[in-house]
Order: sequence, then C-alpha cells, then structure tokens
Amino acid sequence: MILTRSASGLSSLHPLSATRHLTRSALMSVQQPTWTPPQRQREEPVLKIYNSLTKSKTEFIPSDGRRVKWYNCGPTVYDSSHMGHARNYVTQDILRRIMTDYFGYDVHFVMNITDIDDKIIKRARQNHLLDQFREETKSVSPELITRVHAAWRIHVREQLRKGLPAGHAPNEGEEDAFWPSLTESIQNKDWKQECLRRDEKFDMHFSSASQTLAALEVARAQLSTGNHSQEAAHKLISDSKDILSQALDDQYKSTVTDPNIARSLAAYWEGQFFSDMARLKVRDPDTVTRVTEYVPEIVSFVEGIVKNGFAYESEGSVYFDTEAFDKSPKHDYAKLEPWSKGNRELLEDGEGALAQKGGARRPADFALWKASRPGEPSWPSPWGAGRPGWHIECSVMASAILGDNMDIHSGGIDLAFPHHDNEMAQSEAYHECGAWVNYFIHTGHLHIEGLKMSKSLKNFITIDEILQKYSARQLRLAFLSQLWNAKVDFTESMMTGEVRALETTINNFFTNVSALLSQAKADGSDSNGHHNYEEPERDLRTLLYESQYAFRAALCDSFNTPAALGVLRDLITRTNVYITSRGSKALNIQLLENVARWSGSMLRMFGLGSGPTEELGWGVDGDDAAGGSAINREEALMPYIRALSTFRDSVRRLAVGKGETALTDILALCDRLRDVDLVPLGVALDDQEDGKALVKLVPPAELLRAREEKRAAAEAKVAKKAAAAEAERAKRAAKLEKGRLAPQEMYKPPNVPEGTYGSWDEDGKPLTDSEGKELGKNQKKKVEKEWSTQKKLHEEWVKEMSQ
Amino acid sequence: MILTRSASGLSSLHPLSATRHLTRSALMSVQQPTWTPPQRQREEPVLKIYNSLTKSKTEFIPSDGRRVKWYNCGPTVYDSSHMGHARNYVTQDILRRIMTDYFGYDVHFVMNITDIDDKIIKRARQNHLLDQFREETKSVSPELITRVHAAWRIHVREQLRKGLPAGHAPNEGEEDAFWPSLTESIQNKDWKQECLRRDEKFDMHFSSASQTLAALEVARAQLSTGNHSQEAAHKLISDSKDILSQALDDQYKSTVTDPNIARSLAAYWEGQFFSDMARLKVRDPDTVTRVTEYVPEIVSFVEGIVKNGFAYESEGSVYFDTEAFDKSPKHDYAKLEPWSKGNRELLEDGEGALAQKGGARRPADFALWKASRPGEPSWPSPWGAGRPGWHIECSVMASAILGDNMDIHSGGIDLAFPHHDNEMAQSEAYHECGAWVNYFIHTGHLHIEGLKMSKSLKNFITIDEILQKYSARQLRLAFLSQLWNAKVDFTESMMTGEVRALETTINNFFTNVSALLSQAKADGSDSNGHHNYEEPERDLRTLLYESQYAFRAALCDSFNTPAALGVLRDLITRTNVYITSRGSKALNIQLLENVARWSGSMLRMFGLGSGPTEELGWGVDGDDAAGGSAINREEALMPYIRALSTFRDSVRRLAVGKGETALTDILALCDRLRDVDLVPLGVALDDQEDGKALVKLVPPAELLRAREEKRAAAEAKVAKKAAAAEAERAKRAAKLEKGRLAPQEMYKPPNVPEGTYGSWDEDGKPLTDSEGKELGKNQKKKVEKEWSTQKKLHEEWVKEMSQ
Repeated sequence: MILTRSASGLSSLHPLSATRHLTRSALMSVQQPTWTPPQRQREEPVLKIYNSLTKSKTEFIPSDGRRVKWYNCGPTVYDSSHMGHARNYVTQDILRRIMTDYFGYDVHFVMNITDIDDKIIKRARQNHLLDQFREETKSVSPELITRVHAAWRIHVREQLRKGLPAGHAPNEGEEDAFWPSLTESIQNKDWKQECLRRDEKFDMHFSSASQTLAALEVARAQLSTGNHSQEAAHKLISDSKDILSQALDDQYKSTVTDPNIARSLAAYWEGQFFSDMARLKVRDPDTVTRVTEYVPEIVSFVEGIVKNGFAYESEGSVYFDTEAFDKSPKHDYAKLEPWSKGNRELLEDGEGALAQKGGARRPADFALWKASRPGEPSWPSPWGAGRPGWHIECSVMASAILGDNMDIHSGGIDLAFPHHDNEMAQSEAYHECGAWVNYFIHTGHLHIEGLKMSKSLKNFITIDEILQKYSARQLRLAFLSQLWNAKVDFTESMMTGEVRALETTINNFFTNVSALLSQAKADGSDSNGHHNYEEPERDLRTLLYESQYAFRAALCDSFNTPAALGVLRDLITRTNVYITSRGSKALNIQLLENVARWSGSMLRMFGLGSGPTEELGWGVDGDDAAGGSAINREEALMPYIRALSTFRDSVRRLAVGKGETALTDILALCDRLRDVDLVPLGVALDDQEDGKALVKLVPPAELLRAREEKRAAAEAKVAKKAAAAEAERAKRAAKLEKGRLAPQEMYKPPNVPEGTYGSWDEDGKPLTDSEGKELGKNQKKKVEKEWSTQKKLHEEWVKEMSQ
Repeated sequence: MILTRSASGLSSLHPLSATRHLTRSALMSVQQPTWTPPQRQREEPVLKIYNSLTKSKTEFIPSDGRRVKWYNCGPTVYDSSHMGHARNYVTQDILRRIMTDYFGYDVHFVMNITDIDDKIIKRARQNHLLDQFREETKSVSPELITRVHAAWRIHVREQLRKGLPAGHAPNEGEEDAFWPSLTESIQNKDWKQECLRRDEKFDMHFSSASQTLAALEVARAQLSTGNHSQEAAHKLISDSKDILSQALDDQYKSTVTDPNIARSLAAYWEGQFFSDMARLKVRDPDTVTRVTEYVPEIVSFVEGIVKNGFAYESEGSVYFDTEAFDKSPKHDYAKLEPWSKGNRELLEDGEGALAQKGGARRPADFALWKASRPGEPSWPSPWGAGRPGWHIECSVMASAILGDNMDIHSGGIDLAFPHHDNEMAQSEAYHECGAWVNYFIHTGHLHIEGLKMSKSLKNFITIDEILQKYSARQLRLAFLSQLWNAKVDFTESMMTGEVRALETTINNFFTNVSALLSQAKADGSDSNGHHNYEEPERDLRTLLYESQYAFRAALCDSFNTPAALGVLRDLITRTNVYITSRGSKALNIQLLENVARWSGSMLRMFGLGSGPTEELGWGVDGDDAAGGSAINREEALMPYIRALSTFRDSVRRLAVGKGETALTDILALCDRLRDVDLVPLGVALDDQEDGKALVKLVPPAELLRAREEKRAAAEAKVAKKAAAAEAERAKRAAKLEKGRLAPQEMYKPPNVPEGTYGSWDEDGKPLTDSEGKELGKNQKKKVEKEWSTQKKLHEEWVKEMSQ
C-alpha cells in the first residue's frame, strides 16, 4: 500500500515553528510585561585628572567621543638619559597605558624630539673643536700648558663668580693667587652650602677647576723630565676637557659651519634615548616629530603669529609680543603660572645659552625665531637665515599632527613656565582660539636620597647605570608607588625595602596559585564533587568585587596608582590568608584563579610585565624577556634572517656582476659573515675541513671576547716573529760589522794600542813586538788564526757592501 | 682669607624655590584665569543591548559601578559537542570579551554544567545495560536473534508511529508484514517529507530499523552456516544498538541503582566539552557550577518557593504553581514569551523524557523536584527521594553565586521558553523580587547549508570534525561576520569564500607592514630627514580616527560585530591603497604601524589570536599556538641559522672550486635558498630591483600553498608544451608512415584491389586497366602526380629509417 496524503494528519504546523515564527497579530495580542531599566545601586566612578590649568582635579571630558589627542614634551637629545628622564617618561607611559588599556580611550600619543637647541649646538661644537684640538696636539709643550692654564683662569674668573658673594671673585690676573684662599674657605661647610645656594653648579665648576689644575701640574712635571709624549698631552686635554672645550668654543665657534655636526649628535642621542626607553618598557609614541623636519612649517607658523599681531621682527629675530597677547580680551598669557610672568631667571633660562640680548621690546617677550650667528645652524626665512626658538617647535608640531585643540598636554613640571605657557600663548595666538590645551598634566620632580639630582651633586644616575642595579619592573613599581604629580624621592632603602618586598609578595602569590592550579589539574580534581563555595569563598568573592571597584575608583581619582597598587597588595595578602586558612583540600581553585588573573592583568596593564596574556601571572620582567624563554618570534628571528638575506644579496650581486675577482670577493664575504656579522648575534661558525662549518650558539659577549683574544694572539704572533727577525737581523748586522775591519789593519793602531808591535808583513800580520823581538810560535799561530777569521768576515762585509 | 657669611649676599631665596613653592598669600594674589570644561564635539556612543525582555535594544545600565554579573546557560553533558555548541559558546565568548576587554567592565561570568538530566540518566543507563548485555553474550544463538527481533518490532511499532499518519502504524504482530509496504511508500519523496514534518527524527528511526533488520539477516545466515562466534554476536549487538539499548532500558532500568553510572558519563563529556572549548579559544567561565554539587541548596530553594506559596507537593514531586505566580500583582509569568504560556509541546519537552504525568494541577505547572523512580539517581528531600527538575538548577546556582539579581543572563534562543521563563519565575518567587535578570540575551540558531542541523538530516557536525577542516580562527571569523542574535547559516561557500578571503587580506596586511617596518629599521630610515606627514597621511590618520569611532559605535549598537569587522576590513583595504600609492620611499611607517597595531589589537580582542601583545599583528591562530608561542631561543633560531650556514658552505665550496660554471651555480643556489630551503621556515624573500630582497615572515602553510600553485602553473606550462610537441611528433610520424609504401608498389595489390590494373611500367605505374585498356590522359596525369608525391614521402621515410 502507498500511504496517501491525509490533509488532517499532515498539514498542521510543527509546534516549534508555531512559537518561534510568531505572526504579527499574535505578537500584538500577547505582550511582554513592561520592563523597567535597572536602578544603579552604585554609580560608576568618573575619571578626574589633576589639571595644571586649574591646579585641581577636574572631570575628564574628551572632545570627540572617546578620542584622546595627547601631546607629550619629549627630550632634548644631546647626552645620556638619566633617572629624571626615567621618572618622567615611565610615569607618562603609565598614565598612557591606563588611558588606553584600562579606560579604553582611543589615544593618539604624540611626542617631539628637540634636535635643534642651544645645548645641542654648543655640545656638538665643543665636542667637535675639542676633537680637532686633540688631533692637532702631538706632544706636551710649554704652549699647550700655557693655553690650558689660560682657559683655567677664565673659568675661575667667570664660572666660579656666580656662586661667590658679590665682590669676592678674582679680577683678571688674580686667579692663581685667589685659588689657595678659595680652597681654604670651601672647607667650611656652611660657606660652601651658601655658594651652592647662589649657584647650584658651583661645586661642579669648582671640581672642574681642581681637576684641571692637578692635570696642569702633572704636565709641567712631565715637561721638565723630558716626557713630551702625545699620550701625556692627550691626558692633559681629557682631564681639562670641560674647561678647555668652553675656551675653544669661545674662540673658534664661528668656524664650525657644517650643520651635520649638530644633527649627527642629536641623531645619536635620540637613538640612545629610545633604546633606553625600550629597556624601561616605555611604549613608543604613536607619532614622533623632529624639529629639524618641521622648519618650513615653523617659519609659516611664525608668519601667522606676526600677521595676527602678536609678534614682531627685530634684528633678524622674531619675538612674541606678550603684552599685546595678554591685553587681548580673548587671551590670557601664562595660564599655568601667571605669578611667574615677570620671573627673569626662568625667562632667561627659557631663552637658552646662546640667546642674543637686546632684540626684544620687553624682558617677558621671547624669541620665536632666532637670527643665527656664525657657528650656529641656520635655515632660510623671511627674516634672514635663522633657527627656531625653543617654544615654537611644540606649538607647530602639535598643531601639524593634532590640529587647533588637544585633550591632554603633558610634560615635566620644570617645563610649566615659561615653556608650556609660551607654547600655549603661541598656539592660541596663531589659531585665534581660547583654549588650545584642555588638560595640562605635569609629572613631579625626582630627587635622589632627598636631594635634587645633578652632576654637581655627584648623584647623577644614567638609565644604563640604574638598570644594572634594578630591573625595569622594579623601577616601574617604585614610580607606581608614588603619585605621578608628586615629588618622588628615589632612595636605595625604598628600592631594597618596599619595592623588593612587594615584588616578592606578588611573585610568590602567582607561583603559589600556579602550583595549586596545576596540581588540581593533575589530580583531576577540578571537580572533586563539592562546590567549595561557602562563607569564606563568598567573602573572598566580595573582596574581589570590592577590590575591582576600589581599583577603578583609585585610577579615576587622578590616576592614584599608589592606592591602586595598595588595593592589589591587600587583595593578594588576604587571598594568601584564605589559602592558608582553607587548606588545600577545600580550596576553591577557580576563585583563586579569578583573583590571580585579574590582579595579573592589572599589573600587566601598568606595564610591569609582558608575554602571552593567556598565561597566569604578570608576565615576564623586562630584563628576563631579553634572555627569555618567551620571546617574540619576529624580534628574535629577524636579525638572523636579515644576515642571511643580506649575505645572499651580496653573493648574488657579485655573481651577477661576473667580475674577475668575483670568487675571491665571495670568499671574503664568507669570512666577513663569520668574523663580523654573526659575532654580535652570538653565532660562531667553525670552518671544518669537509667544508661544513660547525654552528654554535654562544653568548655574544663570549664571542666578542674570543675574537678579541684571537686578534691579540695573532698580533702577538706577528710581533714575536718580527722581534725574532729583528734579533736575527741585528745578530747578522753585528757579525757583519765585525768584518768592517780589513785583516791587514787589525794589528795596526788604532786597532791595537800604539807600540804593540814593531813590524808587519805585507798582510799586516805582526812580525816583531814593540821591542823588535820576533813573536813566539804560539803567538804567531794565534795571529794566523785570528787573521784568517777576520779575512773571512771582511770578505763577507765587502760582499754585502757591494750589493 | 675665609669669606665670611654676608647676610645680604646669601640669604635671598633661590629663584626656583620662590616660584615652585609659592606661598599661600602669593597664590591668593595672582590667580589663574578661569578654566572652562571642554565642550563635547561628539558624544561617546552608549552601549545598547538587544534585550529579550523587551525584544528591543535597550541602554545597558549595570547595577553596581562597572560590575557585570553574568550567568550563562551551559551544556547538558552526555554526548560530543557539535556546531550548535560552537556557535553558541563562541558567540557568548565574543560578547564576554567585548564587555571585558573592550568596554572594560568587571565581568563575573558564571556557567552551569547540567550533569543531572533525563537525557544523561537514560543515556548512561542504556550504555550500561548494553555493555552488560554485550558482556553476557558469548555466541550467536536463536535466543539472541529472537530478542533483537522483538526489540525491532517494538521500535517499528512505537518509534515509527510518531511520523506516520494516524491509523497507519502497525499493530502488535503486524510489524514484519508492514515493513515492505513502508519501504515502498518511503520511495515517495513527498510522503517522506510529510513524515519528517510530523516527526523530525522519523528518518533516523527508519534508518535504525533498516540497519537492525539487515544485521538480523546476516546473523540468521551465520547461524545456519554454523558461525556462532562471539565476534558475530557482538556485531549484531553493535549494529542494532539504538534499538536494543532502548528495549533493554525498558526492561531493566529499575535495576540500575549506582548513581556513579550517570555521574561518570557526565564527567567524561564535561571534560570533552571544555577541551573542545579550549580548542575554540573560548575562555573558561570565571565560575563553573555543577547540579550534582548543589542538590542540598536546590532542596532548600524549593522549600522556600513552597513557603512563599508558589509551589505545591504532589506524589513526592514538587510543582511550580504558575497560576498563583501569574496572579500575584508583583509577578509576571513568562516574561520572555508570554504567547507561549499554553504551548503544550514546548512544556512537555521542558519536562524531559522521564517525566511523570499526572502530578501537576495544571499543564503549565512544571516540576521543581521529581520523585525518583527505580533506576533514576536520587537524593533525600522532605518529599522523599528525588532529583531536581531541569529549570530549578539555574535559579539555585545563579542565586548561590550572584545573589538575588544579575545584570546579564545568556543562553541559546531554544532555551527562552520554557526554560528561562520558568527559571525567572522560580527565582522571583523565591527572592520575592520583581526582576531577577536585568538583560536577557539569546544567541540565534545555527543552520547548516540552509537546514537545521540534526543527526537525522545527516548534517550533524561535531566540533572535532569541524576543527579538522577549519581553524578556530576561521570559525570565529565566520561567527563574527554574523549578528550574535541572528540565525546563522553555516555554509561551505561562506567558509571557503568570504572567510578565507578576509583571513588572507588580514594576514597579508600584517605581513607587509611587518616587512616594511623591519626593513625601515634595518635601513636606519626610521628617520630619513623628512616628516612624511602630508595630505595622504592626514587622510589616513583621519580614517584611523573615524574607524576607531565607527568600531566603537558598531559594538555599542548591541555588539554589531559584522559592522565592526567591516570597519577593520575597510581600514586595511584603504591602508593598502595608501601603501601602493605612496611607494616605499615616502611612506609614513609610524602611521602604518599605528593602523596595524590598533587593528591587530581589536582582532585579538575578539579572541582571533593569541601570543605576546607587543607583537604586531593579530597573534597566532589557535592551532598554531599549540605548537608553542613560547619557544626557547635555540629551538627557534637554529633552523634559520642552519640554513644560513649551509648556504654559506655551498657558496664557499663553489668559490674555492673555481669551476667554470661557479657563478651560475651560485645563482642557482640563491634561488634554491628562496624557493626551497626557506619556504618551510616561513621566510619569504621577494627579490627587488635594487638587489635587496624584501624579507617577510609568513606562515609556512601559506608559502607552501603559493609555491604549490607556482609549481602547478609551471607544470601545466611544461605539460602544454609537451603536448604540443607530442602532437607535432604524431603529425610527423603519420606523415612518415604514409611514406612506408614504395611508389613502385602503390598501384599493385594488395594496395589496390586485385584486378584493378592489367600491366605496370618499371616504376610500377599502371599502364592498362583490368581489361587491358590503356589508361586515359587524365587518369595518367593523376597517377603521375600521386606517384611523385608518394616517391617524395617514401624517400623521406627511407631517410628516417636509415638514421
């Protein structure tokens, strides 16, 4: 039978389709009950930032959605980065990470590199002139000593004066006489402190003078003992380099005309700066701007300010008209520090060491464009050859990238006045706007063991030095433990005390939880048949909730990282108590993992560790990562692959070129790869007889040492061979020399004392002694032998001479 | 002289301290200008979520700060996870990641594991009974065959009935006679479709019956040929296991009393589920709850509902009183789907396969606690031994962890009614609250090639199967390309088309930008003396800004991931246009890096890749990660260094050998390095005109594919050429073959029919026809021409043969 279709049996809708695909009319007839939006039991904390424009915490309101346009004042690159830089840039990095990774803002972080600046120009010029001087100096001479002594006198007269009470500095010619009394006075601590108060660099100037004086004495002694060596001369130059380079600069600066001298100094130090930042785990800015690349834009920006009536030209320079600006109803000058408006010291400091006096109408007016003097790099402009003032660069570059308004401007507190106030004035004058910057944030000072860090106080620490002592993670923990806008006192006791203790607490916690977790997995006791969620777990869960709330509240309270770090520390401590009190049987492992994952991710968010986020814990420390087990594939591989590719490129080029020496050149390339390119990468190739090199991975330092030893050994071998050859030559020469005397003359004066013999035969052999007595038999025999020997030697000598 | 302290000279404050440490009175006298909070140019998009409680997008308001309490309905664990699970849990994981990692909520994500359930009990019992039966069966016997046949009859009678029109199913004893006509009817497609519409499992039941019948025939044949082997017996049991285990269960279920039988089945499949989830890169829930671990809490929760007057006991079971609840002014029953309230099919489905009829007062009332019959696991309760109903577990466990209110409840759309509606009713009855869940979100259905996935439709795909075909990343991309609450149609063409194309676009982009970046670093052209920030860069920057805004707006629009993914794709496409149009010299590398970093981090945020976040790109794919992102230096580097060293060895050998073809051989080596050696290492060298190859790190599989395509193209070219040559050769051979016949023989038999001609000349040209008549003029002319042609051909043939 074929079952026939039954209308009643098969046509009804499937029940599921009936409910899911409800017709419009059904929906109209049966309605859902009214839904009431949830009541907030507790509001979300709102981000407030301490704003230098109000000197108070103000709610952060971005202008455009969650976009944050941010400009940060970058470094002037002319020397090693130091702890002050570390404090400033690590702190900015922390704030940036919080904004991006915690609050989820779309941040655009711009930073400039100041690569035109009086300090750079001067440093580059001085280095250049000192190098030149060193090269030209071949020996210690009275002239050299006189020259250094003259530089010393100027230094004592002009640099020390700043710290000395008025009227106490020596006049010209009195410097030598003045020195002993000064050194005596300086024994008095109070007195020295007061000099330092007048000039914070007093001690540094005094040290330089002492050092140079000592070097001069050494040099004078050497001169008197006849040691004129170039080495001694260069030692004198090195020991007095601070003073000498200043004197050389005063004398020859106008001869330094190559702009590359300043540019290459800046490029070198910029590279060092970013490499230091990378070691500190400071993220690269999204955009880096360099002043040298923005000069045309600066010129037209300055033109714009002139056109708007807020700047004027004077003697080839252009100055900002602070009075016109401040009087304009739309504008205020010095919004950050109006009380500093008239502060001459700060203003002069802002104008730079090479500032030209007298062009500005008022002391408060500052240079937008500086006419360049000989020895200063210059660019063309409508006002003649010149270079940008300091403040203008930031206005121009920030405007070029971010436009006529930004959400956040940051920098060190030192820059607030005049730099940032001038920068805002310039930009508001150019854009004709009322507020170029919405939030201005300034990181606080750094002190070392209670004192301002300075070369003169001998507590100056470079980033390289500090990273040999502490890890990047430890330094960051130290900075996180302080408010970003507070003065930080960096002390040994803090680092070895609180910071190390906190690091250990955190490390131990993650190690413990990881161990408990992996044990639970190994036991298969992820689920042991109990939910393990009782009162202690509810308490711990509540603690985690409250910690998350408190952490957020702390960061919303103007990035209060010490409080946020405290929240994490307390959570960890109390979780440790839970672990101990619960015992491993009844532990809720999942909850422990929740605590560890969240605290780990927050610590990573602060930049304290890197590596895969799936891994429990706070990741690897900056320094570990370098040697590290968890490595970034690309970063790790690329240097090797690049070496491979470059080698292949070169081989191909030679092979394609088919030059006559191609194969020899290719062999040289093979050696170069082994001896030069692969050494810093830690790869040793040992060439074997079968043509297959043995490949070894060796720490680069070891390879470099081995290469150095090999080179030294080779040199020693060459030297030894040369010495042996020389000895041989000398021996041979001595032997030859013996043959200079003809045998016919050897028994005649002056080769024997007058009157030794009486008569000689035709060969010059003596026949009789002085008394006419014939020589004895033995004597004759001896003469015969000596004569023959000398004859042979003389013949050799004659032969050598005739060649 | 000792310089004495001069009150006037040394006591003045240092100028710096004067300004920084301003006295209060000074601050009062000079004030900062008033600061006006910034105006929002564009508001932040606000997160709205499609809420099943309103069937509309409603603004998301968390109750407590940024805390999000979230409960997700987990799986019932009794079988392999399949594509439906993948769709549901991957989608939930995406939403959770967006909430946590993009919006920065403090999410607490709880998920249950249903390890008590009618399906689990039945499956475990059946497995257990079948195993027991198999163990007891030693040989094929008439009894065994009778037993299986009896089970088959019950199956045909009871299971097939559901799909057949009323009155058409066989009565007891008619099954064997009924079968042939059924198989005949089923040939009719329309007819079969209608059975399927009545019972979607009809086809599956029919298949089981056919398979068992075939197995029975085999067994009968074996029995008659004397094959009684245990192997044959077990084959019969395996082939009829669906039908047999049901029959065994019907007969022996009450004998199964060990609760571990169900528990260990659940534990096994729970392990498989989480392992599948890990392969799909679904994050573990913060808290996992299991029903078996919460039975005491369930009992007291049910007691609470009874006490509050919304449940009643009946025959050892407890039922929820839907009428009492719905009538209470404080409560509404079925808030999600009020139109489904009376839907009996849905309600019955919710009560489970082992439901006992008749205890409830109304059809809408559902079981909170079920009295256990023999063969069902049980726990003590005030109402006797029993087990929890399905819906109650979620109410109890979610309440135990999250309390009397949660922000989000999620689950598949299938669960909306009755499960979620009942769950809410229970909890609101217990907590006496008006809204237990604030936002209810339901993920949409999954279809496969347009059809609902089901075992009976043979389009059932397990997660293990799908992961052999596509990577976790590809699956996630597919789900991201669809709205989370839409019905997804998973098709082969989508996977091999759009998804693969998108993946390739993204991979190529990151590979290119990485290569450009590392080249720029190698060239030292991070800074080439130009800022490279002109109109095209400003446009690209604006595009990046707008992409970030649009991405946020898309996710705020109820997690619109297809739109968000579109934003990233457009950004990448337009950045590629920028790269091409700008050329490598004037590219702004930093800006490219900005684009790549942001898009990479957003793709990672979606869970599409893992590995160190410092790495540019979207990290490693799920499957790659298994091979390890954290690799040790030596393991990582050695293959590359070995390639380098071997290449150098070969180059040296050739150069030392100084063979004539050395340079050509060296060039061949260069090609081999690129095309063979570096490909499996994932290094692509693109030779450039300037002789410096562009180095790219690419997944090896991609390179291999490209090489394979290149090879296939080359082979095709060679094959085409070979075919042409062969055709030419064949043509030539055919021509030659024609010349095999000597012209002298061509007019003689057997080359012409016997008797065509009468006589021939010496060249074999015919002179007369068969009748002795001379050939005509035209005929002669024709012969002459043919003969000459053949002569030429024959000569060629002779020549060829003699070679």
